[in-house]
Amino acid sequence: MAVAEKTGRIAKDLECLKKFTATPGEGCTRLPFTKESRDAVNYLKTVMEEAGLQVQEDAAGNVFGILEGEDPDLPCVMMGSHYDSVVNGGDFDGIAGIVCAIEVARELKSKNLTPKRNFVVVGFCDEEGMRFGTGYFGSGAMLGNRNAEYCRKYKDTDGISIYDAMKEYGLDPERVEEARWPIGSIGYFLETHIEQGPVLDAEGIELGLVDCIVGIQRYMVTVHGRSDHAGTTPMDMRKDAVDAASKVISKIADWAREKADGTVATVGYINTVPGGMNIVAEECQFTVDIRSRNNEHINDIAKRIRAALDREVKAIGGSYEMDNKLTITSVNLSKEMLKTMEESCRKHGFSYEYLPSGAGHDALEIGQVIPTVMLFVPSKDGRSHCPVEFTKFSDFAKASIIMEELAIKLLV
Amino acid sequence: MAVAEKTGRIAKDLECLKKFTATPGEGCTRLPFTKESRDAVNYLKTVMEEAGLQVQEDAAGNVFGILEGEDPDLPCVMMGSHYDSVVNGGDFDGIAGIVCAIEVARELKSKNLTPKRNFVVVGFCDEEGMRFGTGYFGSGAMLGNRNAEYCRKYKDTDGISIYDAMKEYGLDPERVEEARWPIGSIGYFLETHIEQGPVLDAEGIELGLVDCIVGIQRYMVTVHGRSDHAGTTPMDMRKDAVDAASKVISKIADWAREKADGTVATVGYINTVPGGMNIVAEECQFTVDIRSRNNEHINDIAKRIRAALDREVKAIGGSYEMDNKLTITSVNLSKEMLKTMEESCRKHGFSYEYLPSGAGHDALEIGQVIPTVMLFVPSKDGRSHCPVEFTKFSDFAKASIIMEELAIKLLV
Repeated sequence: MAVAEKTGRIAKDLECLKKFTATPGEGCTRLPFTKESRDAVNYLKTVMEEAGLQVQEDAAGNVFGILEGEDPDLPCVMMGSHYDSVVNGGDFDGIAGIVCAIEVARELKSKNLTPKRNFVVVGFCDEEGMRFGTGYFGSGAMLGNRNAEYCRKYKDTDGISIYDAMKEYGLDPERVEEARWPIGSIGYFLETHIEQGPVLDAEGIELGLVDCIVGIQRYMVTVHGRSDHAGTTPMDMRKDAVDAASKVISKIADWAREKADGTVATVGYINTVPGGMNIVAEECQFTVDIRSRNNEHINDIAKRIRAALDREVKAIGGSYEMDNKLTITSVNLSKEMLKTMEESCRKHGFSYEYLPSGAGHDALEIGQVIPTVMLFVPSKDGRSHCPVEFTKFSDFAKASIIMEELAIKLLV
Repeated sequence: MAVAEKTGRIAKDLECLKKFTATPGEGCTRLPFTKESRDAVNYLKTVMEEAGLQVQEDAAGNVFGILEGEDPDLPCVMMGSHYDSVVNGGDFDGIAGIVCAIEVARELKSKNLTPKRNFVVVGFCDEEGMRFGTGYFGSGAMLGNRNAEYCRKYKDTDGISIYDAMKEYGLDPERVEEARWPIGSIGYFLETHIEQGPVLDAEGIELGLVDCIVGIQRYMVTVHGRSDHAGTTPMDMRKDAVDAASKVISKIADWAREKADGTVATVGYINTVPGGMNIVAEECQFTVDIRSRNNEHINDIAKRIRAALDREVKAIGGSYEMDNKLTITSVNLSKEMLKTMEESCRKHGFSYEYLPSGAGHDALEIGQVIPTVMLFVPSKDGRSHCPVEFTKFSDFAKASIIMEELAIKLLV
């Protein structure tokens, strides 16, 4: 059966690629512009050549494998993901999406189809942003949004800039703008990715049709009170920053639950200053991360947080700042392509459900300007960005079947 | 007028003593068993000798000045405080109480009274516990609660034990038990201290009659949830430690306010693990410090915190620990002596109020076994343990007048 053969080929590629890690035995650590990245790219180049693709590496470190169509000037169908990882991450996040795209190319080639347009496998460089605190480097360059100045600006913890790391790696950062693809040259973008969340695994669903990449707003909130002796200062003479902040923090998750549409809100970080157990805190700082497919819901929760902060800092006679650190508007993915994928799932009897992507992906930036779809495969226990990240190889095979049928429809 | 003369003498002593700091220009840093402590003790010895007292230093670093009475075998009247400070502390916390006691001794001497029993000025060593993470070292030794083993156990951040610090300072830690005073030898203990809180200053009251040193319970609470991706994990599949913890923290101050009797409760420290803005926290740790003159109220708030934790961790499917770090039972100070002090205040037209001490003092441990009183003077803006700590010299003079009258009543 097709799934079994595909599973074997995908398994072989992923088993080989997982060796390219800086932390053997402790998960995948494949940072951009390192030896591990070079080894992974070389492996991808080899299997793409074996699949009969024309291999290219661009000025931003992206790797491409092109299956040429009758008219290479038509907008292409591009499929892939990223080959970098976080530190001590898993063996699937990103790289499995490239392996699935190569598998699709193999099938297209073996079927002797005569595609009208190019089918392009892509392996993007530095989606995670782990090394330089950035992200979407390769896909951003492809869209024309990166230049030498950007490369000089961001540095890793050793003080090495993207610029210097690229030179060391053998790329010329002065030429990074050459990685840009002309407007209209990419017709469609397809990405297979692990879910990185628990929904599909918990519900026993095989595939997730991603109809939306959620919007995100991030804030750093600082509540200012006054530091006082915790024993000698009566309750009515305090400006307790923790008291005010906790009265806001305690409501944020509930506001997201109220939306009951997948909206999420998280306070992942809290810090108190000076932080002594016998000192009333003069400052309480916390982060807020709100995500929803509905931008109105994000705005509403941010508004409620501000209103609660206004009320609580007034009660203690304090003040606050609520600094916006990130605002991304949600992106709806291509309804037409999703419909094609849904029909394929039904035909093959694969269980599926529509769901949003709560995490960012290369498809987020690409989806702003190019018709895009994502297909999720289950993550065991929803775990990712850690060594125990796991997805069955057969799930990737099923995803490849769906993606292949979509690609054929778009290509011929 | 007497107040003006006293003010001058007290000001002189405090101005001289404030020079004995390891951080000139940045507040008082006078840690135990250091050059600064030695210099301060030597100064105290000099002025006690000038006041006609018999000076002694004991095996624990405490310094005494004795004004002998007719029958030195009768239980003495002891008055004083501690000469050490915190790091970058103020010029009054502790040391001013010794200066006031010396001023009382000067007056007693000048009045040619014939006291029945000894009047003993004391300067205790290491009340703050700043250097070795302990506290009440000198007063504890006087009560017979310190020995060489204790001295070996506690070390400063450089790894130097109390034991070694004492030897370096010229004391023999093997003899620290000799600092113990026989049971019954101390009849009364009197301590003048800055309030270290805002009540007297805010209300424009000159003196505080301390009727109670509050009880304290301290806890370290750890709420355990599960770390998850803040974007991809639906609200109903999370075990968010911050969500659970904040729902408890936000109520703690209100429970103290409800008591409306001076009970205070403080969460001064919160930490989240792993602490990423895009990661649901697997752990939220926080401290609780509860103080009240009413031990039942402390127990009740601790009980409510446990009940709320039970409820909230159950809601997320998590767990928690609530570790008791300190339990001190409140101590009522001597009603009889307070009454004498109140009469003196009225006589001199000094404004006063009864209030509890929310901070610990040498009088806390001493008050468990010996009739004890404390007299508070106002702290400007309630600030202490910092360079801006300030009390008017004239307030110390007024306190000395009240303490002198109490001492005379006890002595003759």
